[in-house]
Amino acid sequence: MKTPKVAVIMGSDSDFPVVKKCLVMLKKFGISAEVSVISAHRTPELAAQYAKDAEKNGIEVIIAAAGKAAHLGGVLAAFTTLPVIGIPIKSSTMDGMDSLLSMVQMPKGIPVATVAIDGADNAGILAAQILSLSHEEIKPLLQKYKEDMAQEVIKKNIAIKEEAKTI
Amino acid sequence: MKTPKVAVIMGSDSDFPVVKKCLVMLKKFGISAEVSVISAHRTPELAAQYAKDAEKNGIEVIIAAAGKAAHLGGVLAAFTTLPVIGIPIKSSTMDGMDSLLSMVQMPKGIPVATVAIDGADNAGILAAQILSLSHEEIKPLLQKYKEDMAQEVIKKNIAIKEEAKTI
Amino acid sequence: MKTPKVAVIMGSDSDFPVVKKCLVMLKKFGISAEVSVISAHRTPELAAQYAKDAEKNGIEVIIAAAGKAAHLGGVLAAFTTLPVIGIPIKSSTMDGMDSLLSMVQMPKGIPVATVAIDGADNAGILAAQILSLSHEEIKPLLQKYKEDMAQEVIKKNIAIKEEAKTI
Amino acid sequence: MKTPKVAVIMGSDSDFPVVKKCLVMLKKFGISAEVSVISAHRTPELAAQYAKDAEKNGIEVIIAAAGKAAHLGGVLAAFTTLPVIGIPIKSSTMDGMDSLLSMVQMPKGIPVATVAIDGADNAGILAAQILSLSHEEIKPLLQKYKEDMAQEVIKKNIAIKEEAKTI
Amino acid sequence: MKTPKVAVIMGSDSDFPVVKKCLVMLKKFGISAEVSVISAHRTPELAAQYAKDAEKNGIEVIIAAAGKAAHLGGVLAAFTTLPVIGIPIKSSTMDGMDSLLSMVQMPKGIPVATVAIDGADNAGILAAQILSLSHEEIKPLLQKYKEDMAQEVIKKNIAIKEEAKTI
Amino acid sequence: MKTPKVAVIMGSDSDFPVVKKCLVMLKKFGISAEVSVISAHRTPELAAQYAKDAEKNGIEVIIAAAGKAAHLGGVLAAFTTLPVIGIPIKSSTMDGMDSLLSMVQMPKGIPVATVAIDGADNAGILAAQILSLSHEEIKPLLQKYKEDMAQEVIKKNIAIKEEAKTI
Amino acid sequence: MKTPKVAVIMGSDSDFPVVKKCLVMLKKFGISAEVSVISAHRTPELAAQYAKDAEKNGIEVIIAAAGKAAHLGGVLAAFTTLPVIGIPIKSSTMDGMDSLLSMVQMPKGIPVATVAIDGADNAGILAAQILSLSHEEIKPLLQKYKEDMAQEVIKKNIAIKEEAKTI
Amino acid sequence: MKTPKVAVIMGSDSDFPVVKKCLVMLKKFGISAEVSVISAHRTPELAAQYAKDAEKNGIEVIIAAAGKAAHLGGVLAAFTTLPVIGIPIKSSTMDGMDSLLSMVQMPKGIPVATVAIDGADNAGILAAQILSLSHEEIKPLLQKYKEDMAQEVIKKNIAIKEEAKTI
Repeated sequence: MKTPKVAVIMGSDSDFPVVKKCLVMLKKFGISAEVSVISAHRTPELAAQYAKDAEKNGIEVIIAAAGKAAHLGGVLAAFTTLPVIGIPIKSSTMDGMDSLLSMVQMPKGIPVATVAIDGADNAGILAAQILSLSHEEIKPLLQKYKEDMAQEVIKKNIAIKEEAKTI
Repeated sequence: MKTPKVAVIMGSDSDFPVVKKCLVMLKKFGISAEVSVISAHRTPELAAQYAKDAEKNGIEVIIAAAGKAAHLGGVLAAFTTLPVIGIPIKSSTMDGMDSLLSMVQMPKGIPVATVAIDGADNAGILAAQILSLSHEEIKPLLQKYKEDMAQEVIKKNIAIKEEAKTI
Repeated sequence: MKTPKVAVIMGSDSDFPVVKKCLVMLKKFGISAEVSVISAHRTPELAAQYAKDAEKNGIEVIIAAAGKAAHLGGVLAAFTTLPVIGIPIKSSTMDGMDSLLSMVQMPKGIPVATVAIDGADNAGILAAQILSLSHEEIKPLLQKYKEDMAQEVIKKNIAIKEEAKTI
Repeated sequence: MKTPKVAVIMGSDSDFPVVKKCLVMLKKFGISAEVSVISAHRTPELAAQYAKDAEKNGIEVIIAAAGKAAHLGGVLAAFTTLPVIGIPIKSSTMDGMDSLLSMVQMPKGIPVATVAIDGADNAGILAAQILSLSHEEIKPLLQKYKEDMAQEVIKKNIAIKEEAKTI
Repeated sequence: MKTPKVAVIMGSDSDFPVVKKCLVMLKKFGISAEVSVISAHRTPELAAQYAKDAEKNGIEVIIAAAGKAAHLGGVLAAFTTLPVIGIPIKSSTMDGMDSLLSMVQMPKGIPVATVAIDGADNAGILAAQILSLSHEEIKPLLQKYKEDMAQEVIKKNIAIKEEAKTI
Repeated sequence: MKTPKVAVIMGSDSDFPVVKKCLVMLKKFGISAEVSVISAHRTPELAAQYAKDAEKNGIEVIIAAAGKAAHLGGVLAAFTTLPVIGIPIKSSTMDGMDSLLSMVQMPKGIPVATVAIDGADNAGILAAQILSLSHEEIKPLLQKYKEDMAQEVIKKNIAIKEEAKTI
Repeated sequence: MKTPKVAVIMGSDSDFPVVKKCLVMLKKFGISAEVSVISAHRTPELAAQYAKDAEKNGIEVIIAAAGKAAHLGGVLAAFTTLPVIGIPIKSSTMDGMDSLLSMVQMPKGIPVATVAIDGADNAGILAAQILSLSHEEIKPLLQKYKEDMAQEVIKKNIAIKEEAKTI
Repeated sequence: MKTPKVAVIMGSDSDFPVVKKCLVMLKKFGISAEVSVISAHRTPELAAQYAKDAEKNGIEVIIAAAGKAAHLGGVLAAFTTLPVIGIPIKSSTMDGMDSLLSMVQMPKGIPVATVAIDGADNAGILAAQILSLSHEEIKPLLQKYKEDMAQEVIKKNIAIKEEAKTI
């Protein structure tokens, strides 16, 4: 059974602190990540080549994180039929609204599956959900993650009731 | 070889004219669609049950279209680990910005793969891309669709040069 | 005479610093609060069950605080006919606009009475106003609170005149 | 058993086509409506007097609909401790965003329970939910309305499956 | 020759750090300021009375500063025919957009002359410009202020050329 | 007694349908209007000259209407110390938000008294309020206009009660 | 003397009605236009090749028009050092805000000179201004255009004074 | 061979920290910069004169940086046919959206080539691209800059792969 492989690409290494949350998530689901800094604008040929070769290099899902006029997801998606997930990164202005619209408003024909602004962990989970369709071993991990989240909320529920008593 | 199956759920039947574009796309890729009107708010138990049963009913991807405070995607995603794609529908105010933010800004743990406002065709293509990882027969169809799009642009490129001469 | 009871639910315990202002307000009006952390997405069944049982558990008003794609209010409202008040929480991006729109733009049939972003104190006062219709003892407290606010403004009015003289 | 009474106030008679949906809803729940055009800016004394007298005139809930810089809800709420529901009306610019923010962003102390832009029907339902706490006869009507909505969705669900087959 | 008099009213004493800039400006133009904290919502009768009496108390222009759902300007303007200048105050969310729209989008009949968000100095200058139409002594002061501003820019122009050389 | 004179300047003659409402209002208050089309960008010298000469030509208030990047108000204000009122015109995109921000967000030193998007009638009233400080004959007209508005609302209030009965 | 040559590229032939205004403008300044439909996403290799070859094909300026997630300008700019002008096209939602932000918010290193939403005529003028630096024959045409615009405004100024008299 | 000359004008010296990035960039491309602080509103005649004289003073491109209601670019462009580049500066509110719209939304006839909010380095690069059309010596510098950027990304790509291993 082959380990599933996801490409995690960021437009700038300054996106790494956010992207890290995605890597942690992929690891939790036993998914191998090929991490790169590739800029749609500064290294456009690299980006094109990477996307074109992704499938034959064993990549099954591409995750692209970028800020401002975030073209990275769209540029990669133009060169592949693999699913591309976009993480809009909040930059120094606009609270990430520019990145979000640049990613999510893709024209007909070339979708980018967009998650929340700085929502790198959800990009990882979404990749796991997609891969779980063909990698059965991920299913129970996703199930367990869902249950753990619920348990965590239940614990916080108990704790908050105590904390609330002090008011 | 089993036909891949996608659930296409809309929050209101008034979303159908947009959602139709998704169904056309799924058909083009040989994907069977189970179409429903289920409201996260008016039929919450139905929504929960549908999402919980989706996997065992053979659904591999869920597509949810909704407008305004578009909770449908999130509510379905809460009950399943299948990938959920969200189509924010433009309603009578806000140009769809309310639907977009209600869908894409999902908290950690429960992603909704959001496409453009009214971007139903892209939701269909994204589902096809996801399914193509395990349904090999979709791959060449996606490839062909990409090539057809390019050909169509090339034809328009020739036509526009003629039209531009009249100026 | 039964003490009126309000359910105060937050989607995450990180909302507590804001929600606290609501609890202080409810206490001021002699209203008992049942405080919980329940996530619409991570513990959806708990949320549904809580809302369904709320009335028979003596809850008269539900207050829901949540950030980002803030579905909590809508999800609870779907399972009850009790009035649901929503507090949109400002999160790390969008200045709370995402939470506000996700709460206030509810579709026909399932209202969420939305207050200002992070406006937890007003959620408490609104609950008191609603409960005062059937719990007469709250009326004079609301009246007094209104008068106290006026007095406080009048005191500040006098103080500011002094402060302004220094310019 | 006294018929519950709601004041429905609009800032301009041009708001009536939207406000009508609220009146229909109140009627459905057996609630009597006192309908007025009162402008916070053009008839400020009338507005103040109306709000001050509302309670002793038997009003239990106030619903205020206004567009643009929609101060009506806040101005009425300043003079009463009755719950005030605000309907932001979409006017010729801004898609109702100006009305929404002018209503929902009320400062501490004076809440306005805001519903969706042009969401007049939900204002009526919210009023019914509030009144049902002290008017028991409204409870089963709300319950029935919820069930009817569900049934309507279920009917549309069946119809859409037929319609979808034509694609 | 009577000293011109302007009322400077803020909705909350927390607005004072911004409003101070207005007072400095009025002083520069020899205009006397009557400074108050009056809340449109917490002290509505005071607000109404103040506005109604303003003219006979010798006030010629009213300046109103408020944040969030900033009704103060509109509420005062409803009770007087004196010109009312509005300063939208930036509060904890929305970057002042809520205050701006609540002030500037006044309906037909009751204008509020709105300046920039937190633009208290400009409110003072605008008041001086208005008063200079009937108080001739203000004209040369405004003229001088304009010339001083120009001189200041010219000085900075020289300084920047030096600073730029270091690059 | 000299007739008060206001300059009403629009950036483009396409703004005239909106600006007309301002002229009607000025006429109602017995104010003479000097109407011009002057573009801040296409006729910048004309704009500068107009503003510089305005005062000695007997103009007391300048009203500037413009759309998109609406610089007209600011450009005129730069050359005069007369009060300048800005009307942001809603153009083909952005619902007038671009015009509003371009007008209202003026930097320190050069205020533009901004009214609502397309709020030309309020610009006329504001000019009348300003001029009434030195032209006593306008005062009773403003007072009467306020009373007429109130009467009109009261008439509509009666009418709406009839209309509401049909529901 | 070689005729200056500009590439005018649109992402979709549906952009042509707007782009036409650019072609008219270029013609007025004696600039030859090479018009194409090339999609950054549907024909990415064509786009890359076009931009890489542009300079050696005699193109001096590139104008790119696109809507929604408008990557076209950025994608072309990535492959050339020629100046790239972007025209954000208003599409079915968001009033062109998505296109504007996707174009103007380019990251460091790869500028796109962005004009107004649907501002195709200004893109043509900007190209003419740029080309006039090396093509002296364009200078007087630009000068004349500026004077013609002024004359046109002056004519409208006269006409409006007549029209205003009817009010 | 004459050194190309660019005018870099900021509306306020507080813009200098951002504008500095532009000067560094121009220097890198061997372009001489004439740096000024000139306010469109505080020194309007200086601005007009500067723009009118720019061409005969040897300026080939004008770069204008300004915040809030950023009229500087438009005001300069009104007096010259040189290309004008606008840098919208992020100020204390609105995240720079006000500056962006005030600059980019220029009406027909007077373009301002707008770059990203605070995108001063891109303004410098854009000026270099424009000047390279007539100053051949800039071409290879732009080419080299593009290659250096690519190399830098490639280095970061290698580094990130190491850093990612630690997760």
